[in-house]
Amino acid sequence: MTRFDHETLGQRVLFASGEATENLRAEVARFNAAAVMVIAGAERNAAIWHGIEPALLHTDVAPHVPVDKAEKARAAARKHGIDLLVCVGGGSTIGLAKAVALTSDLPIIAVPTTYAGSEATNVWGMTEAARKTTGVDARVLPATVIYDATLQATLPVELSVASGLNALAHSVDSMWAPRTDPINQALAVEAIRVLVAGLPLIKADPGDLRGHEKTLCGAYLSAVAFASAGSGLHHKICHVLGGAYNLPHAQTHAVILQHVLAYNAPAAPDAAERIAAAFGGADAVAGLASLRATLDAPTALRDYGLRESDLDEAAELILPAVPASNPRPVTKESLTRLLRDAWAGRSACG
Amino acid sequence: MTRFDHETLGQRVLFASGEATENLRAEVARFNAAAVMVIAGAERNAAIWHGIEPALLHTDVAPHVPVDKAEKARAAARKHGIDLLVCVGGGSTIGLAKAVALTSDLPIIAVPTTYAGSEATNVWGMTEAARKTTGVDARVLPATVIYDATLQATLPVELSVASGLNALAHSVDSMWAPRTDPINQALAVEAIRVLVAGLPLIKADPGDLRGHEKTLCGAYLSAVAFASAGSGLHHKICHVLGGAYNLPHAQTHAVILQHVLAYNAPAAPDAAERIAAAFGGADAVAGLASLRATLDAPTALRDYGLRESDLDEAAELILPAVPASNPRPVTKESLTRLLRDAWAGRSACG
Repeated sequence: MTRFDHETLGQRVLFASGEATENLRAEVARFNAAAVMVIAGAERNAAIWHGIEPALLHTDVAPHVPVDKAEKARAAARKHGIDLLVCVGGGSTIGLAKAVALTSDLPIIAVPTTYAGSEATNVWGMTEAARKTTGVDARVLPATVIYDATLQATLPVELSVASGLNALAHSVDSMWAPRTDPINQALAVEAIRVLVAGLPLIKADPGDLRGHEKTLCGAYLSAVAFASAGSGLHHKICHVLGGAYNLPHAQTHAVILQHVLAYNAPAAPDAAERIAAAFGGADAVAGLASLRATLDAPTALRDYGLRESDLDEAAELILPAVPASNPRPVTKESLTRLLRDAWAGRSACG
Repeated sequence: MTRFDHETLGQRVLFASGEATENLRAEVARFNAAAVMVIAGAERNAAIWHGIEPALLHTDVAPHVPVDKAEKARAAARKHGIDLLVCVGGGSTIGLAKAVALTSDLPIIAVPTTYAGSEATNVWGMTEAARKTTGVDARVLPATVIYDATLQATLPVELSVASGLNALAHSVDSMWAPRTDPINQALAVEAIRVLVAGLPLIKADPGDLRGHEKTLCGAYLSAVAFASAGSGLHHKICHVLGGAYNLPHAQTHAVILQHVLAYNAPAAPDAAERIAAAFGGADAVAGLASLRATLDAPTALRDYGLRESDLDEAAELILPAVPASNPRPVTKESLTRLLRDAWAGRSACG
């Protein structure tokens, strides 16, 4: 029996390499805004908002959206009578725009410069005294997303690959996450397919625009699927590891994904078959292993600060967060084994 | 290079067999409506709105939404101070609710009883003096769709199959329609996959709820893809044939699709490969032929009233409507050949 509740988030997506400036100008005109606030982490992208004459350029952006930065941005928006937010940057920049929209209900036009995917979700997050609060609110979903792969093409190749693998984790985990359904699975499978095609092109030639276009498209589809499906086992593990042991985000995702896939695949044959097909083969775990080899992906959490003596405690912390709907039951023992393999850099492939 | 503008339509979808009554009650409560108008073509579905106490039950529904019927329904909604529309039925019923929403901006909750897919689109249509007017308007998109496959399971098997093949035409044609893009292609491919799985189950056992659930899910995904991608070659041909020669809708689609697929596939190798994979094989045309054989699908337009002497004129009428973006150029000669094959019932498979 098929049973699901699905909320499709209405959003406009303009995808055209080299056309961000022009698309932004047209989109701002469409909103008929009197006072535009541009939020941007880096001045190097100034060409993008050339021609829209912002009432305010706000560059005070920091990772994880500290509450005091959010308050400053909100006050600035009020002071300047802002009626439209434009954000140009990665997750932190988009996150700051969301924090402003959350209390002001101002519309957002997002121009993402990474593969983080925040632009496709109605999730906001803010931090205060090292504690992160997150929430879901329709007001923070950008009304329009403007994609231009020439922006991502200037990222260092390691960042592109790590960010792309993070996107891949969004889509793979969406296949068995708590709110997985046929709609977000359709998007997730296609996301995997284009990421698997795109990332090796970037690795081979970081300036290859085709690779960035595919990866960008895959990152978007992954984010839409993930926002709808919610966090599965993979994201619960990574969330705890990142928070408790301060492990680097992208590398943690890159290492953990293969182990979660290998763990869940036997218990989720339909998802595994579809993931395998999206990887272009008959075996999902082998498909991911092959992609990882091509990309020279991180293999062991011990390389990133996790200690062997942390494993037992980590398993204890993760266990209560494991989704009840995970296709394969997770025990303290199986979780510890998974974490030990990820720590040691053991291959998940047989 | 990838380049597209995509508008994702925000919509809530509740999918649960046997739960339409309960889901409708909960959804009406969520809208906090004071006066609900139920529009329904058939009293046999009365159990669905049992428990919501409509201010008005409107059953004056006719195919193609005649303008006078729309005016009557609008006047009735005004008179009763309606603040929420609930429609229970197929395309004609949903179409009437859309006609009311178009001028009143009232929200719609749709409970579809066929596989037509109108509930997933922002397209409205009305007829006056045998002329059909259509348009696109955000106001007519149902806010919520409630799917319950037990409703479709009461359809005659021929209607299920014909309506399901019509849905398949939506998704296949979406792969090369004028606004095709990676988002609607992802949904279209998954739509094909579940329709190919679901329709044979219905044919084998019309009461098989799994078959209806898959077909319903596929019909929804097809409609979302089609609404976004627009009409491709297939729909342009069927639209002209239906209008000029009064051919039956479902049968025309069922016959034409294989010929359009066979015509376009060589010129759209990526789409053809993905359609083939969705059919579970290596060849898209063979995949469709196999499904058609299983379903005992209509084969020849001459069985439905088209005359051989109409073919030349039909080609003349269709030619100006062929999308410029069709992957393979269409000439008077190639179109006439396609129509002749469809008329004669020649197999498109080799």
